[in-house]
Amino acid sequence: MPTLVMKFGGTSVANLERIANVAEKISREVERGYNVIVIVSAMSGKTNELIGWVNDTSDIYDAREYDAVVASGENVTAGLMALRLQEMGVSARSWQGWQVPINTTSAHSAARFVSIPRDNIEAKFAEGFRVAVVAGFQGVSPEGRITTLGRGGSDTTAVAFAAAFEAERCDIYTDVDGVYTTDPRITAKARKLDKISYEEMLELASLGAKVLQTRSVELAMRYGVRLRVLSSFDETDETSGTMVCDEEEIMESKVVSGIAFSRDEAKVTLVTVEDRPGIAAAIFGPLADAGVNVDMIVQNISEKDYDEVHPGAVTDMTFSCPIDQINRARKAMENAKAAGSINYENLIVDADVSKVSVVGIGMRSHTGVAAKMFRALAAEGVNIKVISTSEIKISVLIDRKYIELAVQTLHDEFDLGAPADDV
Amino acid sequence: MPTLVMKFGGTSVANLERIANVAEKISREVERGYNVIVIVSAMSGKTNELIGWVNDTSDIYDAREYDAVVASGENVTAGLMALRLQEMGVSARSWQGWQVPINTTSAHSAARFVSIPRDNIEAKFAEGFRVAVVAGFQGVSPEGRITTLGRGGSDTTAVAFAAAFEAERCDIYTDVDGVYTTDPRITAKARKLDKISYEEMLELASLGAKVLQTRSVELAMRYGVRLRVLSSFDETDETSGTMVCDEEEIMESKVVSGIAFSRDEAKVTLVTVEDRPGIAAAIFGPLADAGVNVDMIVQNISEKDYDEVHPGAVTDMTFSCPIDQINRARKAMENAKAAGSINYENLIVDADVSKVSVVGIGMRSHTGVAAKMFRALAAEGVNIKVISTSEIKISVLIDRKYIELAVQTLHDEFDLGAPADDV
Repeated sequence: MPTLVMKFGGTSVANLERIANVAEKISREVERGYNVIVIVSAMSGKTNELIGWVNDTSDIYDAREYDAVVASGENVTAGLMALRLQEMGVSARSWQGWQVPINTTSAHSAARFVSIPRDNIEAKFAEGFRVAVVAGFQGVSPEGRITTLGRGGSDTTAVAFAAAFEAERCDIYTDVDGVYTTDPRITAKARKLDKISYEEMLELASLGAKVLQTRSVELAMRYGVRLRVLSSFDETDETSGTMVCDEEEIMESKVVSGIAFSRDEAKVTLVTVEDRPGIAAAIFGPLADAGVNVDMIVQNISEKDYDEVHPGAVTDMTFSCPIDQINRARKAMENAKAAGSINYENLIVDADVSKVSVVGIGMRSHTGVAAKMFRALAAEGVNIKVISTSEIKISVLIDRKYIELAVQTLHDEFDLGAPADDV
Repeated sequence: MPTLVMKFGGTSVANLERIANVAEKISREVERGYNVIVIVSAMSGKTNELIGWVNDTSDIYDAREYDAVVASGENVTAGLMALRLQEMGVSARSWQGWQVPINTTSAHSAARFVSIPRDNIEAKFAEGFRVAVVAGFQGVSPEGRITTLGRGGSDTTAVAFAAAFEAERCDIYTDVDGVYTTDPRITAKARKLDKISYEEMLELASLGAKVLQTRSVELAMRYGVRLRVLSSFDETDETSGTMVCDEEEIMESKVVSGIAFSRDEAKVTLVTVEDRPGIAAAIFGPLADAGVNVDMIVQNISEKDYDEVHPGAVTDMTFSCPIDQINRARKAMENAKAAGSINYENLIVDADVSKVSVVGIGMRSHTGVAAKMFRALAAEGVNIKVISTSEIKISVLIDRKYIELAVQTLHDEFDLGAPADDV
């Protein structure tokens, strides 16, 4: 029998009524002839409650105990889902991470998969069980302690099972009905994509589309797992949602697939930094240690090229990060300056910026996308502050007040509201 | 280093403040030089929440899934307690049932211990850990699935660990400060006992004193575990609470140790039952199947010894059960009659009775306790409806309206308010 992996996030299993609703979806796939591996998250809010308790209990952070506490939320959902399926006449049982076992590294709270042996679950399928309900987000370390994979780890668990069991597909049920060309709240012309390539999805996810956890897409790409994103709240069938797959499978001909954006960015510029080998490491090391997620980095030659105080070359260094990390970033820079490991004349923070990106695998073979983007923004009077590019995306920082205008303009410019032509 | 087992029930770990308070008590025992094994229950209310979810999810009762869900409450407490102890500088880690492992039978929701190997926990003690925080109430089956021991199973877990690790003592922290001669709410003369024998404790616990789970006392008696009951809310020291121990260790000279009672009993009489071999089984089998906890059983020869309709001997059969099981009991009897497996003329229910018992290991060597009890009740005009006796207790059913009077009268009659003379 072919295997299907289905994953349900916290909002999809938030209460008993939703669990029952989701069980119907599982039952339908069993009727279609699949053996189903279901990956469940904790009921919405439960993980945060547990994390709150851990934080309030101790300032000492023992990730092993953190994991042991936090993983319990998924175990509850797994048991309840198995019971609900039994109630509907579907032979199901729950699996906790250590029972499968989901072998991971000992990097608690950020563990990585080592192996997922198929034997135990396959033995149950052979006995006639049709559904294995697996607690997501968790595993077991070589020392026999419970590990967790970090936030979004249930998506990753689903993809890892799909890879290990060579599943026909991995369906990620969530609270949106697919991947859109951009956020429909910004423009009513936003259109759901039927298919999108792994590479594009990676850029969209990491740019704030918030549909799929980045690591799960990476894993899917690596193992060729066909990933489908669809809504757990709608009626769904074989054609629902958005399929994330290899670009060969995609027949659409658009150069640009979507416009991603991230509203709450900040831009930090260190003015007149000594330009010597190792200076980048001296700046971004302390930022990483302080937990600042640096996104774009731009280095320019400063106007004050040589002077008496700084006999070497000097430069200006600009980076962006989420706005709520700006104090940490500033403090890390000030500490590094005080410690003498870096030197700068001035630190300028611009907390009123947003990022907008055009993403499309077609850029690889089409030129002029950047020029088209910049021209469209200029025509609307939107000033570009920082530019960063990769093979399949172009991102710019702009003033926050222009973000809706910029997204709408680019969505129109690249004609994303219209269905793609089949090639 | 000597080992101490400490057990904390749900109300003792009901919130983070109480967990912190309890951690102080553990820390003090570590300072006294013990390696401590701590058994924790789920935070008060959590287990009921989980059970409610299971019941609302499915009418089909799969005890394996029930156990997997319900055991998660204790895992949360264990992790939080370990974190709190670490915060205080005490080296502690949590243990879930399968990690120890606590090997049990496969009788889910009512599993029994098979073995508790010391190796894993002792290896950690040898590394310098001073506290093992074990999730109570759970274990792992030979099939590798999570089991639970049923209600009160955390007490039993504590005693089993004390036996396995040859602990110096097993301290059961609860919301009362010890075992009393009777309920202090009934008479202000009730006095806390410093020591009580296993046998007496068994009778008191099963009669409704509600301090210790019966099976845990049986287990303690069997393995000679010294069990102490004390309050998690008071300041406690080495002499606090009540010690449950071998009778040889008890120097008190009272014949009667306590007056137990159970307010909400009901009495059922089957009038004119055919008296033939197997009739008791035909009556009490269906009651057991219906989940009725039959307590006292009395069989009298009926007045209508022989008649034409029932050519055999006939009898009346009376039993008592908790009042909230009376409908189940009635239905089970009516069904059995309808099915023809038993026959009776009339079923009489008396739902207005209570049970009062005098308990004392001294009864073994002292005669006249029953006569003294019956005389004292008669002097107050309390009519006795049913009598049942064991080696160390005498129980009677009386009208519910007399229960306070009866307890006070017997407490005075056996002079329980005064401290015991040391022999």
